[in-house]
Amino acid sequence: MRVVDIIIKKKQGGILTKEEIHFIIDGYVKGIIPDYQVSALLMAICFNGLNNEEQTNLTMEMLNSGEKIDLSTIDGICVDKHSTGGVGDKTTLVVAPVVAACGLKIAKMSGRGLGHTGGTLDKLESIPGFTISVEPEKFFKQVREIGIAVVGQTANITPADKKLYALRDVTGTVESVGLIASSIMSKKLASGAHSILLDVKVGDGAFMKNINDARILAKAMVSIGEACGRKTVAMLTDMDQPLGEAVGNSLEVIEAIETLKGRGTPDFQKLCHEISAEMLLMTGTANDKEEAMQLVEEKIQNGEALEKFRQMISYQHGNPEVINNYDLFGKANKVIEVRSDKDGYVDKIKTLQVGNVAMLLGAGRATKDEKIDPVVGLEIKVKVGSKVSKNDLLAKIYSNGKNEEEAIRKLKDAFIVSDEFVEEQNIILDIITKA
Amino acid sequence: MRVVDIIIKKKQGGILTKEEIHFIIDGYVKGIIPDYQVSALLMAICFNGLNNEEQTNLTMEMLNSGEKIDLSTIDGICVDKHSTGGVGDKTTLVVAPVVAACGLKIAKMSGRGLGHTGGTLDKLESIPGFTISVEPEKFFKQVREIGIAVVGQTANITPADKKLYALRDVTGTVESVGLIASSIMSKKLASGAHSILLDVKVGDGAFMKNINDARILAKAMVSIGEACGRKTVAMLTDMDQPLGEAVGNSLEVIEAIETLKGRGTPDFQKLCHEISAEMLLMTGTANDKEEAMQLVEEKIQNGEALEKFRQMISYQHGNPEVINNYDLFGKANKVIEVRSDKDGYVDKIKTLQVGNVAMLLGAGRATKDEKIDPVVGLEIKVKVGSKVSKNDLLAKIYSNGKNEEEAIRKLKDAFIVSDEFVEEQNIILDIITKA
Repeated sequence: MRVVDIIIKKKQGGILTKEEIHFIIDGYVKGIIPDYQVSALLMAICFNGLNNEEQTNLTMEMLNSGEKIDLSTIDGICVDKHSTGGVGDKTTLVVAPVVAACGLKIAKMSGRGLGHTGGTLDKLESIPGFTISVEPEKFFKQVREIGIAVVGQTANITPADKKLYALRDVTGTVESVGLIASSIMSKKLASGAHSILLDVKVGDGAFMKNINDARILAKAMVSIGEACGRKTVAMLTDMDQPLGEAVGNSLEVIEAIETLKGRGTPDFQKLCHEISAEMLLMTGTANDKEEAMQLVEEKIQNGEALEKFRQMISYQHGNPEVINNYDLFGKANKVIEVRSDKDGYVDKIKTLQVGNVAMLLGAGRATKDEKIDPVVGLEIKVKVGSKVSKNDLLAKIYSNGKNEEEAIRKLKDAFIVSDEFVEEQNIILDIITKA
Repeated sequence: MRVVDIIIKKKQGGILTKEEIHFIIDGYVKGIIPDYQVSALLMAICFNGLNNEEQTNLTMEMLNSGEKIDLSTIDGICVDKHSTGGVGDKTTLVVAPVVAACGLKIAKMSGRGLGHTGGTLDKLESIPGFTISVEPEKFFKQVREIGIAVVGQTANITPADKKLYALRDVTGTVESVGLIASSIMSKKLASGAHSILLDVKVGDGAFMKNINDARILAKAMVSIGEACGRKTVAMLTDMDQPLGEAVGNSLEVIEAIETLKGRGTPDFQKLCHEISAEMLLMTGTANDKEEAMQLVEEKIQNGEALEKFRQMISYQHGNPEVINNYDLFGKANKVIEVRSDKDGYVDKIKTLQVGNVAMLLGAGRATKDEKIDPVVGLEIKVKVGSKVSKNDLLAKIYSNGKNEEEAIRKLKDAFIVSDEFVEEQNIILDIITKA
């Protein structure tokens, strides 16, 4: 087998065999195949794509390149939930306790990402004392005892994906459905869950800007997951406006707690309930949608979901009192209000720009080494379709002074208020299950 | 400027600016930009192409990366002729003396290539004593005195092209019109000629398998040449059967001498006359096609063309007696005849396979270090459309024993004789001039 022949095959639109994909990935990880041949192949894949079988084979190769988390010592159904990322996305903080309260097992090892706000791990770390560094044995024990744990990744999973991703990042080959799907799914499969719920965000604030691209990606990931023997469902959800109100680490944790108390912002609450219900359905915990939704609401009403969150905080050395006293999170020095300068309807909230404002304030990181300020961020007080009068509150900025003026200016600019009536947006756009 | 942004621009179908192309080529030659980014860009170019302006800018960058041959000390019009390569292509050996006899200046520095037979340099070296190693000053002096010199490349021309080509070769990015055209033209421009005649071969035995692809390549090269201020004409010529009779180094020189004596095979003679005439036309040496053809025929009839060839041999230390005594070339040990096993018409001669047979016998080289056997090769005694009877001679094999049986078998297999009448093929398919 010659690498150049495999590159030419893909360049000409051919389908790579399992053996060819193994040859490439294995050779690349071992350092036998050079970057320059792999980057040419990646670019050819960007143009000619990967079919379902190729995607599955690539995923399996990357999965098998590293360690896998073995959840076999945990009784019950282990579920995982993954979001492709958005602005104000604290869904895991609500969904995980809800489904754990329903008896599912959440054994989640996350990596840290770059982004407008921190990832789930950074959000949790805004809870005083909370640690995400948990030894594997303690992690499994915690899941066995309380059904929920969200910790940092320690195992060396999917090194092939890491090496490929680093190359894609500098060669313009990030944007390819097959490569994105394989990358995400290899990590999800390595995490060991039996069932995987994928929240594929769509819109200005998401990686996928339009629903067609998002649907293609979702179908690809579901196809891979199912081909690898995992129950996999993808939901396409709106990211054309920030999710809920809060964008920022401790602010988002507070919003999640409010939602677990049954007082969430309507759009975010709906998303959490729908995703949780879908996870109950796909695992057979509920027989139909109605039963699933009832179960979710019951676990929130009776406080069991919040209790799961409290237990997790306690197990992971956080101060569970934060649930009752939000002052324990600490506070930003200054709260700045952004108000509407006209009457009308909110027509658009530039979501990516809102995310960038949060980042400017210090809520996120652009490089691995940047430090996050857990208390800064935004509260977005209106939704697309909201009727506003002049001087109505649009948003609050929680600032510790960093880039404050630029943040105010850019946040004001992010809201477009129209004279015409604007319809509210749906949060759930589609659900993709096995074909 | 960031390399990754340039890659993404081309991936998305954008047009690269002169500055971006300079940034890439200059950075690559200097070793600042790594292979893996350039190979990704090259693959994106394979898919999205280069427009005329990009091709010209790329050509100029590669041209300016190295030395250029300065022909300003030579009076008169310096012309160059380039073939994209074919089986039995000894055209330069005839055309160069013919146009030199007509007063044009041929100052040709060639590189060595890989192929079924050697290149022009290897063919000339089959003449006893002939040297292609000529000091630059002696080279210019020779052209000034006799109007013709064909020597080996010593200057470091287009190092950017060399580095890019080596990368393309191992990354499946050779086949791209824009890249091929820029590569060829950068070398032609560096060679310093005022006028360039490109012989773009089309068919089974050529790099370009069909006329549409060949026409696109020809137009691209003409566009680049003219944009760089050189008169450039491309001829599309048939390579769906071996050119003339001889395939092999000394055999081809003998056929060229015969053609200079006015005794060439009709197809090869026609090609040489047409190309020579076109060179006279494009340089204004003749006013119209008829005058040009007459001049060519005159220079062959009166022996002046052959005399130019004889002078070149003498100047380059070869034995000019070979012109009268072909035995001086030496002889293969064995001549094997291949005969038709049926009556009919020659429907097809698998040209690439004929080339491979010559290579098997030792006439060509697959790697730089292989040694060529100058006397081995083939004589193809029929053309597509020839009427043959059972046992008629199809070809002769001149063998020194290397791979003899395989060569015989494969050469037999290369001839398809049909019961139906088959038309003869045209040698000149099209002429491309500035749009």
